[in-house]
Amino acid sequence: MMRGTVGVVAWHGTTLRKTLHSFSAPSSSAFLGPNLPDVWVARDHTSLPSHFPETLQWENGHNAVILDGKSIAKQIKLKVADEIRRMKSGIGKFPRLAVVLVGDRRDSHTFIQVKLKACDQVGIETVVVQLPKKCTESELLDVVSSYNDKTDVHGIILQLPLPQHLDEEKIINVVSPEKDVDGFHPSNIGNLVIRGRKPFFVPCAPKGCIELLLKHGVEIKGKRAVIIGRSKIAGLPTSFLLQRHHATVSMLHAYTKNPEQITCEADIVVADVGIPNIVRGNWLKKGVVVIDMGANQVKDPSGHGFCVSGDVCFEEAVKVASAITPVPGGMGPVTISMLLSNTLDSAKRAFGMIRNFE
Amino acid sequence: MMRGTVGVVAWHGTTLRKTLHSFSAPSSSAFLGPNLPDVWVARDHTSLPSHFPETLQWENGHNAVILDGKSIAKQIKLKVADEIRRMKSGIGKFPRLAVVLVGDRRDSHTFIQVKLKACDQVGIETVVVQLPKKCTESELLDVVSSYNDKTDVHGIILQLPLPQHLDEEKIINVVSPEKDVDGFHPSNIGNLVIRGRKPFFVPCAPKGCIELLLKHGVEIKGKRAVIIGRSKIAGLPTSFLLQRHHATVSMLHAYTKNPEQITCEADIVVADVGIPNIVRGNWLKKGVVVIDMGANQVKDPSGHGFCVSGDVCFEEAVKVASAITPVPGGMGPVTISMLLSNTLDSAKRAFGMIRNFE
Repeated sequence: MMRGTVGVVAWHGTTLRKTLHSFSAPSSSAFLGPNLPDVWVARDHTSLPSHFPETLQWENGHNAVILDGKSIAKQIKLKVADEIRRMKSGIGKFPRLAVVLVGDRRDSHTFIQVKLKACDQVGIETVVVQLPKKCTESELLDVVSSYNDKTDVHGIILQLPLPQHLDEEKIINVVSPEKDVDGFHPSNIGNLVIRGRKPFFVPCAPKGCIELLLKHGVEIKGKRAVIIGRSKIAGLPTSFLLQRHHATVSMLHAYTKNPEQITCEADIVVADVGIPNIVRGNWLKKGVVVIDMGANQVKDPSGHGFCVSGDVCFEEAVKVASAITPVPGGMGPVTISMLLSNTLDSAKRAFGMIRNFE
Repeated sequence: MMRGTVGVVAWHGTTLRKTLHSFSAPSSSAFLGPNLPDVWVARDHTSLPSHFPETLQWENGHNAVILDGKSIAKQIKLKVADEIRRMKSGIGKFPRLAVVLVGDRRDSHTFIQVKLKACDQVGIETVVVQLPKKCTESELLDVVSSYNDKTDVHGIILQLPLPQHLDEEKIINVVSPEKDVDGFHPSNIGNLVIRGRKPFFVPCAPKGCIELLLKHGVEIKGKRAVIIGRSKIAGLPTSFLLQRHHATVSMLHAYTKNPEQITCEADIVVADVGIPNIVRGNWLKKGVVVIDMGANQVKDPSGHGFCVSGDVCFEEAVKVASAITPVPGGMGPVTISMLLSNTLDSAKRAFGMIRNFE
């Protein structure tokens, strides 16, 4: 009897394996499309194009408004610092942010230093956990989980990219959505894309973009917005957010043919490509508002060291745009200030000072 | 001492309330944009426009391919039925779907009947739970939770819309993402929009759209796709899916000015508006592929009863399109077949016959 039962189980097992192979319903992942890398073809971006249409430029005397991210970031920081000061004196509490870093990439260290300094300036306490490059997934998951459990930690950021052996998606999924101040958790992203729903956090770069536009009185509703580049942390969520603000949004990427034919119809252009100066003046409509999310390290023209360059050829774009962010000093500082603002919001929620999402 | 402590607590409380009012950081929800209703202005859609450009039409003899949803749905159903038959004979198990209905809207009953019939045809067992229109949120949540817990139920669908006193978002959030065969849970939507991530389920209408395109060999990568209308269940997730297939996607909605200027540049047009015949022939580029997601009840031309009409003026569009879905008989049947396919996938996952998302 016992052997018979075992036999049946084995037979089931065989059938199951056989069934596994012969089941032929279309693979569900086929519906999600091929996971192709976005490889942009860099164009010549050192010289001005010979066909740059001078006629598109404004008449003499026009000056594009420079969307000064530094000063807006400064305002936000002052506000956040003031709130934290009052929080401390009022209830004796303050926000805490945990930064998790794996390995010792130089750029990651630099980014973290910028974040830590900003936190320090406004009164957010930080703790940095650095794990060795070869740490296991489970070690990393344990660290993240431990900060999920700590009630006195209000935000957790996982410095990306992770070393290749770690499953980024899996780790991000473990960060509690209520402490996910980067806004990358699928449930936060899901609640970002659907109108009427409220994520705990909106990712910092898209939030910074909206802040810059709103602060400068740029109307979004009904405008045509084109996002060039669809990174998970910037371009893609920015497209969602602009759509929630009722812009008509087109999302361009490395497989878009003739992107300039689409960008030249846009009232708002957001560049998130990662190639210096790829967006030329002749890609733009007169009067466009340009948000440059690029932060590319390029050789300094002086020949000494490196400097940061945007994705937009500023010298050309400034001649046709009605407003434009500089690089550096545009999106960068505002993005950092949004991290502070998200962390403060999280602490306020934890302390019962705001409801879920106000 | 005790009184002193109480005093301090009270003082803290007062400060807290005061602080609550005086905290002046920008409201986070402002970043999400105003939650405006999509009110489309219906144009005259009974007569052909006088300016309909005859020149755009194909030469004599051209026939647009009719994307026959009925026959594709039939193929999928046969495949699903065959798999379930083999599943039953192999391991003695089969998929089960729970349908939760609140109130007694006539249209909801009709939709459910269609789904139940399709499930029955392929061997998916169904259970319908009907709650009274005035049921409380907690009663509904209890029902949904109970099906989350039942291991022999593989899919849960919540028939929308819910009566207004119920918080749709809250209820959807309670459906287990692993049984969310409609694909509406925020974490499934979040994993749908981010390349590389894998939701448990892709919503049925977008999945049906991709199925129709792929089955007819329509290339998506690098093509310009325009989605008109951004409903949570159809237009919006279709835009995400087409983007994952590397189309350049523009999302049009009620606040888009001159939508026809954008649609006429598209290689693929998806209509999800809810207004019969709003998309005219002169909105379309010659050779476009048209997916009509509309299913509008209109008076039958014969004057007797009602019939279903799409969002696209078929008679005009068929003259310029290279392929087009009819209504009825296009997206409708394919969408239903995708619900069957999702429910089967869920059961296969529960029985260990496929991994998470294959």
